[in-house]
Amino acid sequence: MNGAELLMSTLAFEGVELCFANPGTSELHLVAALDNVEGIRGVLVLFEGVATGAADGYGRMAGKPASVLLHLGPGLANGLANLHNARRANSPVICLVGEQATYHRKYDPPLTMLQSIESLVSSVSAEVLTIESAGEITGSVVRAVRRTMGAGGAGRADGNGAGQPGDERPGARMLLPMQPGRVVSVVVPSDVSWGQVGRDRVSVAGDSAAGERTSGEAANMAGRAGARPGSEAVRRSVGDERVEEVASILRSGSPAALLLGGEALRATGIRNAVRIAASTGAKVFADVLPARMERGGSIPSVERLGYLPELALAQLQGLSHLICVDVREPVSFFAYEGIPSSMAPDGCAVTHLAVWPHGAGATLAALAEAVGGASSRSDATSVTVAAGVNGKASLPSGALDAGKLGAVFGALLPEGAIVVDEGVTEGIFAYLASEGAPEHDWLCLSGGAIGQGLPLAVGAALACTDRHVVALEADGSSMYTPQALWTQARESLNVTNIILSNRSYQLLRMELQRFGIDATRTEAEGLTSVGRPEIGFAKLASSFGIESTRVDDAGDFATVLERYLKTEGPTLIEAVL
Amino acid sequence: MNGAELLMSTLAFEGVELCFANPGTSELHLVAALDNVEGIRGVLVLFEGVATGAADGYGRMAGKPASVLLHLGPGLANGLANLHNARRANSPVICLVGEQATYHRKYDPPLTMLQSIESLVSSVSAEVLTIESAGEITGSVVRAVRRTMGAGGAGRADGNGAGQPGDERPGARMLLPMQPGRVVSVVVPSDVSWGQVGRDRVSVAGDSAAGERTSGEAANMAGRAGARPGSEAVRRSVGDERVEEVASILRSGSPAALLLGGEALRATGIRNAVRIAASTGAKVFADVLPARMERGGSIPSVERLGYLPELALAQLQGLSHLICVDVREPVSFFAYEGIPSSMAPDGCAVTHLAVWPHGAGATLAALAEAVGGASSRSDATSVTVAAGVNGKASLPSGALDAGKLGAVFGALLPEGAIVVDEGVTEGIFAYLASEGAPEHDWLCLSGGAIGQGLPLAVGAALACTDRHVVALEADGSSMYTPQALWTQARESLNVTNIILSNRSYQLLRMELQRFGIDATRTEAEGLTSVGRPEIGFAKLASSFGIESTRVDDAGDFATVLERYLKTEGPTLIEAVL
Repeated sequence: MNGAELLMSTLAFEGVELCFANPGTSELHLVAALDNVEGIRGVLVLFEGVATGAADGYGRMAGKPASVLLHLGPGLANGLANLHNARRANSPVICLVGEQATYHRKYDPPLTMLQSIESLVSSVSAEVLTIESAGEITGSVVRAVRRTMGAGGAGRADGNGAGQPGDERPGARMLLPMQPGRVVSVVVPSDVSWGQVGRDRVSVAGDSAAGERTSGEAANMAGRAGARPGSEAVRRSVGDERVEEVASILRSGSPAALLLGGEALRATGIRNAVRIAASTGAKVFADVLPARMERGGSIPSVERLGYLPELALAQLQGLSHLICVDVREPVSFFAYEGIPSSMAPDGCAVTHLAVWPHGAGATLAALAEAVGGASSRSDATSVTVAAGVNGKASLPSGALDAGKLGAVFGALLPEGAIVVDEGVTEGIFAYLASEGAPEHDWLCLSGGAIGQGLPLAVGAALACTDRHVVALEADGSSMYTPQALWTQARESLNVTNIILSNRSYQLLRMELQRFGIDATRTEAEGLTSVGRPEIGFAKLASSFGIESTRVDDAGDFATVLERYLKTEGPTLIEAVL
Repeated sequence: MNGAELLMSTLAFEGVELCFANPGTSELHLVAALDNVEGIRGVLVLFEGVATGAADGYGRMAGKPASVLLHLGPGLANGLANLHNARRANSPVICLVGEQATYHRKYDPPLTMLQSIESLVSSVSAEVLTIESAGEITGSVVRAVRRTMGAGGAGRADGNGAGQPGDERPGARMLLPMQPGRVVSVVVPSDVSWGQVGRDRVSVAGDSAAGERTSGEAANMAGRAGARPGSEAVRRSVGDERVEEVASILRSGSPAALLLGGEALRATGIRNAVRIAASTGAKVFADVLPARMERGGSIPSVERLGYLPELALAQLQGLSHLICVDVREPVSFFAYEGIPSSMAPDGCAVTHLAVWPHGAGATLAALAEAVGGASSRSDATSVTVAAGVNGKASLPSGALDAGKLGAVFGALLPEGAIVVDEGVTEGIFAYLASEGAPEHDWLCLSGGAIGQGLPLAVGAALACTDRHVVALEADGSSMYTPQALWTQARESLNVTNIILSNRSYQLLRMELQRFGIDATRTEAEGLTSVGRPEIGFAKLASSFGIESTRVDDAGDFATVLERYLKTEGPTLIEAVL
């Protein structure tokens, strides 16, 4: 057995089933190892940003990490933007980066960059482990996987949720420190991969008893590492004292709101938050771009904070207390003259509760008990609407626009769908119109780096093979990582891609106007227009063998969408708006 | 005038004409400034890797920098791999990265990564300048542009070429320190962009007199900055003493070779190297993947070092002296058990001569004089072959393969063509077959990070609007940055793209075999195959409005290539091998 086989065996033993790969020469022994190890397989992508975005989607839906395999510094660089998104979504991801052989690095071979791979990957990683010898393989891999699941991360953000003081910057107000996230990176030199590991450690490749022994040793070596992901305990609430402290704020009667993010946006968390609100008069908001929100069906609907700071400021106006549950204090994505950076009003106290790995769900349950919230579902503010004949009877017709598209989408969205929303400006209508659809998951661009949607759909579909994924995708954003469509086809994934084709970076045009810049002038208009030449998205998808249709009529959109939602394998609708 | 306008004015004044852009909200004032400033325009790309690869292509052919405009850390990350390639090609590039407003950064807004933008961009930059206030704009921009042209870079690699000792690592032998390259990065916070600049500094936007005054001041502020790029002097030789030292090595009669890279591979450099060889018996080699090599016509042909270490070792066998002219000591791209990292044989002394910004051309001329080289062209080892009736008469027919494709390519390549070679395994035949074509430039993937070819063609075509660009592109590599085709169409660039479609990462299959791994096993085969599903490259190109054809016959390839080489605007041939 060589080091690569030991590494892949350990990953598989720790429950990592997939390796999204776009390898190069320095990773070939790791590729070969996938043939010799049971329980983990490779998924080929054509560009590293697809690998990392897919791992994010998988992590959000599976609740455990997939791995990615990247080629040296430049391959890693191509995957960084979606690793950033994964960090901001708090998705578990194991990032394997192949490195030159330990003895070869000093020769500065052509693919070497001016800074180390470790330096580059630390921009997105909770922890970076470099394996310098065979003896470190199992310990590092076990530590990495368990770290993604919440073990051993104390020090940077231990999740007590007490507001983590220590940020003494002027103007800071209960700001949470930067969160490390759950991307853990392992740098693997090629001689570690091809080197033989001692027979006294592991005797036979693929021998599960040997695998267990190895991982048992490894768990000891990994020190602070906790239980295996498969046996993960339900995440615990923050302490009773802390819950009581927050309960007393809510009972005080001064204007308060709960802001839900992370695991607080699962159905039970939302229900408990609504119970708390009913008992105390507090408002409830959802994070602006949640990583994963359960909604529809009987799940109470929760108002999301607006993306534009003017909206968020209005939503939070008048509050004395903002209780952030597994989410950062809301801040503007960008700065604008005369608009504050922080969205909480002056004088509003911000309290952080249940920062991951503390359990947001358990904490909200405890808080609901503490404030004596009713347990009935009567607090639900939305009504389930069956997507059936009634819904379809009122479908819009005529020239397609974002509003009509949203209405059709909301009426047809099937039970159990997973919606990947990178619709940017045009996607909001679909979000609003699907509030009453059957239960589904809604996945947003938490990190703000576009080019995530199509890859995210790949990972979500692989995590939940029995569910249908719908990717709402802005045209400009889709062109960052169109290669994801190829992997959708290769893996026959049940993904319906809807390209919202408005031929512009509409968000930037809106922002230009907000800055008082004339968006019709040559360069301003030109650099926000993707319509010259027009991109034929249906044709693009068919170049990868994906069934696709271009529509500009609302009725046609409904007909095609209904059909594609029942089609096996990937499909694409070019929706001309 | 605001900071953004001052910045763009200064760039334009320093001779920077293009800004390859894929901006976001934090860069919008810089976008707007392009409307108010003469002499610089924006070129929209759909993905940052296209911007940076295009700037590399422009820099190689124009000999001066274009700028790129990238959005925060994640946008920069998307452009890093091709900035790495630009650094390895020693291309001048100004990399502008928009940053959050200075006061907004501490709020950790969603697009912020765990490490600073400066940390990330230092992996590819000779220098990183962060503009913290309006007063720093002109000085920083002037310094940045002049640094790309060779001013003020002393300290990291001053180009004296004396072998730069100081590398005391075991086994190191006259290794050149890591070269900083000519990518200079400027980080621009959005409040610097939108802030007004004092009227005493610049009175009117677009007023060239004011512009001159500003830049005059700026030049003083920039300190070590040298002359403006437009008035750049011919690069000087290394000193006479150093030339004489190398001349005496060559005259000694012990087996020696010149290895040419960088600016040594322009026609005059090659001619002088061949003169030196004729006088001294030295061999002449070209770098394995030159950034830009002038060849064809009456330019003597020079043997390139092989990519595989076995080949390079055989080529350099028996040498006592290797004189590296504007190029690093040759090392293997990757490590293999039992094969040395360095390609020069044991006991061979390696000497570095004329490292940029010293002039390789002037140095080779001086060296040729010193060794008494003949000045006639009779040393040329190649013969000019007119690409005309004779060439075409012997064109191959039948099922297309890489050899036949190369033969057709070599016979039809027009005078003055610029060939971008990311053909990887299948492109080598075209290289060999075009040795006798009319004079042309050949551009390689110096940094080894695939995804460069199609963007490089964009930049080369914009630098040389009167020449025809031919991009030889491997199918796997082309799928890294296919968005470049859209910009080719948008800008109506004269580029003929030839996709070498063998439906595999053939290089990796070869490497698997070299490692003794069975390349037909499930994962090894699967992760090196891009043929399931097959990609329809002609269809893909037509989705961007590009004229394209799929061919699998050598005669059809010749017919289509001949037509496309005379077509205005971009075209694409899907060559099925």
